[in-house]
Amino acid sequence: MKALVKVTLKNGVLDPQGKAIHQALGSLGFDGIDQVRQGKLIEIDLNENDEAKAHAQVEKMCEKLLANMVIENYSIELEAS
Amino acid sequence: MKALVKVTLKNGVLDPQGKAIHQALGSLGFDGIDQVRQGKLIEIDLNENDEAKAHAQVEKMCEKLLANMVIENYSIELEAS
Repeated sequence: MKALVKVTLKNGVLDPQGKAIHQALGSLGFDGIDQVRQGKLIEIDLNENDEAKAHAQVEKMCEKLLANMVIENYSIELEAS
Repeated sequence: MKALVKVTLKNGVLDPQGKAIHQALGSLGFDGIDQVRQGKLIEIDLNENDEAKAHAQVEKMCEKLLANMVIENYSIELEAS
């Protein structure tokens, strides 16, 4: 099955990349934007077909490698592939 | 309202970052992974409250700045903030 992991910065953590996008959008004439935050999107194709097992496995991956738990949050979505 | 933009590499486009994650997961003992692809996740807080207008605006942002249409796809999700 396929796992979609969203890794986003926690609230309060500075996001220079998001700020740069915000400014670039502003200079292109896009007004009315309050905030831009940039995160990561990781798609993982797993052999595992059991949803509970796949979720547990991906959770471990997030905690060990994909997300920096000090400054980032993650969320996991699973879909049958 | 809040827009969530997912920018992913098109199929067939090489993804060295995804490959690096794949290998790192393998060396941490996570087996049974077929493929890893990394994309970008951009959260935009908009002042616009009309869904159709917001969607059109974010679509323009994607085409002008957020996504490289030659090698990337994008998808837009809107939610009331």
